[in-house]
Amino acid sequence: MTIHAYAAKEVGGKLEPFDYEPGSLGLEEVEIEVKYCGICHSDIMIVDDEIGISQYPVVPGHEVIGTVNAVGEGVQNLQIGQQVGLGWLSHSCMSCEWCLAGDHNLCQSAQPTIIGHYGGFADKVRAHHKWVFPLPDALNPQTAGPLFCGGITVFNPIVQLNIKGSDRVGIIGVGGLGHMAIQFLSAWGCEVTAFSTSADKEAEARNLGADHFVNSSNPTAIKELTNSFDVILSTVNADLDWESYVAALRPRGCLHFLGITPHPIAVQMISLLLGQKSISASPVGSPSVVEQMLNFVARKQLQPMVEFYPFEQVNEAMDRLREGKPRYRIVLQR
Amino acid sequence: MTIHAYAAKEVGGKLEPFDYEPGSLGLEEVEIEVKYCGICHSDIMIVDDEIGISQYPVVPGHEVIGTVNAVGEGVQNLQIGQQVGLGWLSHSCMSCEWCLAGDHNLCQSAQPTIIGHYGGFADKVRAHHKWVFPLPDALNPQTAGPLFCGGITVFNPIVQLNIKGSDRVGIIGVGGLGHMAIQFLSAWGCEVTAFSTSADKEAEARNLGADHFVNSSNPTAIKELTNSFDVILSTVNADLDWESYVAALRPRGCLHFLGITPHPIAVQMISLLLGQKSISASPVGSPSVVEQMLNFVARKQLQPMVEFYPFEQVNEAMDRLREGKPRYRIVLQR
Repeated sequence: MTIHAYAAKEVGGKLEPFDYEPGSLGLEEVEIEVKYCGICHSDIMIVDDEIGISQYPVVPGHEVIGTVNAVGEGVQNLQIGQQVGLGWLSHSCMSCEWCLAGDHNLCQSAQPTIIGHYGGFADKVRAHHKWVFPLPDALNPQTAGPLFCGGITVFNPIVQLNIKGSDRVGIIGVGGLGHMAIQFLSAWGCEVTAFSTSADKEAEARNLGADHFVNSSNPTAIKELTNSFDVILSTVNADLDWESYVAALRPRGCLHFLGITPHPIAVQMISLLLGQKSISASPVGSPSVVEQMLNFVARKQLQPMVEFYPFEQVNEAMDRLREGKPRYRIVLQR
Repeated sequence: MTIHAYAAKEVGGKLEPFDYEPGSLGLEEVEIEVKYCGICHSDIMIVDDEIGISQYPVVPGHEVIGTVNAVGEGVQNLQIGQQVGLGWLSHSCMSCEWCLAGDHNLCQSAQPTIIGHYGGFADKVRAHHKWVFPLPDALNPQTAGPLFCGGITVFNPIVQLNIKGSDRVGIIGVGGLGHMAIQFLSAWGCEVTAFSTSADKEAEARNLGADHFVNSSNPTAIKELTNSFDVILSTVNADLDWESYVAALRPRGCLHFLGITPHPIAVQMISLLLGQKSISASPVGSPSVVEQMLNFVARKQLQPMVEFYPFEQVNEAMDRLREGKPRYRIVLQR
């Protein structure tokens, strides 16, 4: 059997048709027939080898929606033909302390779907069954792909930081991650403030559920918000005046990062100490948290805002994302 | 009635005898007859106006042990003659959301004992009854003073970070704070590693309960400890290679600061993100946490290691602390 994929054969390379033989299916593996696949900024990051861990050829694609095409002999929980999703991670060891504790996302040998493994820009992709999730019937499969990386990235801190419906939450960036964070936290009950440098996103942010909108290209706006937020989630890959955002936290507040900043975060210790504040960050969630998200999103009828491209136009779609133009995610479809 | 105190009349000034009239005792206030008073680095910080918030004359002293000399009409829980302690804070508003939630230490109008208020280098000192704590009988009043600032500073994160007996905890600095942190965390059940640049403190650190000792003047020692600690508490007022300490954290680990660093903390975001790590800091604890500490310390028969000076030699004692020489705290006594 041959899998037909799109791959970058060198750093920053255009995606080209690439066929490979996947070998026999592992005992605990699932093969998914790919119907839709979101494009995430980290696909570009790995194609471009921005953090030095890429392995070529790179087959991007880690926001997969499809149907189960085959299961290994040890797979009990998934059936052929079932509609499923797959995200950033496709395997973990299942035996270390983190996997045992339900924190499989922190497993030191967790396997990203697109590093040393061929991803979802393909007709088929494989993964361990614990990282393949049945899609709730109430979710639209066309738009669900971005939940499996972008979505879980913004949902995970809700669980990890124990965010409550009474919390005041700031969300920095109204983009691929931020537009989902606004929806999730608004539905979670929080008072949501969206920060964006794009004033033209205000109406959309409010439609998504933001109670307040702050134009963060105005440097004094954030300074007027001292002592306002229980949590601030940064979804941007930019260097901002983090000291101002720490000052905007209430006592016990947390400035939490989901995007990687170009330069180190630098904060005066006394800014954290007096109000018992913290700075933290988190990656994608564990299987248990992915399932919590899927159920929550299905029940609340939330969905990513998506632009569609056919798989054949994957390079055009990648270029559009490189230019930061999508509102807000791109999904490839057959 | 006149209170006889020692005060610095100007920035960095020597302490001189200073008498003041305290006026009538507030309804909810307690007057303490001071028997012992610890000296803390923050007494020097306020005498020297290091953070620009001092009000002169400064009467230092916020690790007070004494007996109740008088109580206001609204004070029900303390009796004349009872042995009590008083720490960094002496009043809070008692009505804001933080006071209501039991987090009086985060009250925005909490009153430090030695800023805009006269402290415990005196024959008497006053405070709100909620900030005056009965001393358990099992505690030695001679050495208990330093528990009320240094002690609660290192105990508070045990509660705030929910540190468990199975945790691996690193403690940076074996000094006024660190020597108490080692005792507390060892008694709490943790596996304790002490970091110090003073190799000659190893035996003492182990006697206090450290399971391991790392000479942190060796820059490679910390680099060999990646993925080792659930929590690292920094008790030092120094700039270290924080990136190495973050790398020494296990997934979900926290680098927590109790000392104020001269320069901002700077950390690469990806170092936090992959392992879901955090950087945080905390001030002294709330009344409820002070009581938890006193009961724990009394039950475990822990105590600060103390050098004694008579009140009349307060300037010599302050000089010794400025030189970093005490092992590990100084207590003034009558």
